[in-house]
Amino acid sequence: MKIAFIGLGNMGGPMARNLVKAGHTLTVFDVVKANVDALVAVGATAAGSAKHAAAAAEVVITMLPSSPHVKSVYLGDEGVLAGAAAGTTLIDSSTIDPATAREVAAAASTRGFAMADAPVSGGTGGAEAGTLTFMVGAEPQLFERVKPLLGHMGKNIVHCGGAGTGQVAKICNNMLLGIAMVGVAEAMNLGVALGIDPKVLAGIINTSSGRCWSSDTYNPYPGVLPNAPASRGYTGGFGTDLMLKDLGLATDAAKQAKASVVMGATAQQLYQLLSSQGAGAQDFSAIINLLRKTP
Amino acid sequence: MKIAFIGLGNMGGPMARNLVKAGHTLTVFDVVKANVDALVAVGATAAGSAKHAAAAAEVVITMLPSSPHVKSVYLGDEGVLAGAAAGTTLIDSSTIDPATAREVAAAASTRGFAMADAPVSGGTGGAEAGTLTFMVGAEPQLFERVKPLLGHMGKNIVHCGGAGTGQVAKICNNMLLGIAMVGVAEAMNLGVALGIDPKVLAGIINTSSGRCWSSDTYNPYPGVLPNAPASRGYTGGFGTDLMLKDLGLATDAAKQAKASVVMGATAQQLYQLLSSQGAGAQDFSAIINLLRKTP
Repeated sequence: MKIAFIGLGNMGGPMARNLVKAGHTLTVFDVVKANVDALVAVGATAAGSAKHAAAAAEVVITMLPSSPHVKSVYLGDEGVLAGAAAGTTLIDSSTIDPATAREVAAAASTRGFAMADAPVSGGTGGAEAGTLTFMVGAEPQLFERVKPLLGHMGKNIVHCGGAGTGQVAKICNNMLLGIAMVGVAEAMNLGVALGIDPKVLAGIINTSSGRCWSSDTYNPYPGVLPNAPASRGYTGGFGTDLMLKDLGLATDAAKQAKASVVMGATAQQLYQLLSSQGAGAQDFSAIINLLRKTP
Repeated sequence: MKIAFIGLGNMGGPMARNLVKAGHTLTVFDVVKANVDALVAVGATAAGSAKHAAAAAEVVITMLPSSPHVKSVYLGDEGVLAGAAAGTTLIDSSTIDPATAREVAAAASTRGFAMADAPVSGGTGGAEAGTLTFMVGAEPQLFERVKPLLGHMGKNIVHCGGAGTGQVAKICNNMLLGIAMVGVAEAMNLGVALGIDPKVLAGIINTSSGRCWSSDTYNPYPGVLPNAPASRGYTGGFGTDLMLKDLGLATDAAKQAKASVVMGATAQQLYQLLSSQGAGAQDFSAIINLLRKTP
């Protein structure tokens, strides 16, 4: 299949490479020349703009940092909608706010293009291994059409509903994740301060009603889980600044929807505090360090 | 075994009945005469005070509403320590603050009694079915000694460490539970406001990093889980006022330990708000109703 891939950073780069490996013909674009060169080296063709990349494609996939980039890449003069041929399928895998996702999908629809939002979870490791989870907002027919293609980059391809619902699923899940991680950090920190062994406490939580991914798979207390970022100095994993971005999207979307997210907003502030103290590049489970008493 | 059981309310009553069923000889005391009569009707002997109940026993078990009751029942003039014979084993299954649990255990120890704190989870249903979880703070030898007896009232008997750690485990788990439930309520409410189907969103969360007991076993959104309290008008289950009690214990203990529990304290305030609005007797997952927009 002829695919245009736009946005070849830490996530888009390995995703595009997996499509090349699967035998697809890729035309690629990125504002960073080195990112383009890396894809050309494995067999992709470089294009001079999003518009030119899209012109040659049956499917356009984008993986961009934020909402303004998505608007510009799709709706700009040198953008996808200006270049794509009739019938081209559009897939945006960026994580952006649901309102922008719906606005761009509506603009695409007006011009006769079917567009899916398909943000991912699984991080750079999942992008490289082709084991990402895709949360897809698309009409049922479109979902069935894009599913096999996304399967070359991911393991779980989940249909969330119509346009924008992929973004809704991602920000709601990640807001809950951000809240639960602070909750686990507070519970572990309090328990240890009150004299219980952290592994014993985690074991009890993991078989009780406090059970959650942030405790049983990703515990923030060092040494509880040997393979968690907490046990290797909070390196690798899911960065605090990425969690902060998702909590920003969730709290912004909540404001627009007039929905109360007291805990979500508090979590956003706590990760902001952690980031402001210089830990933005550390794994988000480092939030437990914010709670630590200085000896 | 000759057991004194003190505190025969919604939890203590069925726990004591399970001990009678298991063949133990019970002497019982409660300030509410009807509670005593109910146990006498199944074969227990009534005592006129905690002191008198304890005098006849090899093991004393208490199940009381709060810390002041525990202090009074153990340390008062008509209390357990004043009546118990040398060598009597003491087990307090009340949920109280860890500091009081340690203070009473220390007072017992000074008088030559071994004492375990063994708060439970599982609610009145678990108490009746004999499927409670006991979180036990006790020296290892004492734990081994009380474990078979607790096994007549519960299914999981977990050793948490020395005196007080049973209480620590319980309040840390329940603080996390209270936080996670608000998080799930916010995520579900936000997602639905943004146009995703609640069952679809819960399904995605339950297989993603937001996965937790409050979502996959006890989801607060009506209709997502047919057997959860949310699907029967928030009746039954774990009352908001009981969650509020545990969050009060957790935040008080955090103050004493100078540990930061930003989310725990926020959760305490949110459940207080729900209770103040008249929903204290509803299941704690009714916290989602606090977030609902009035149509």
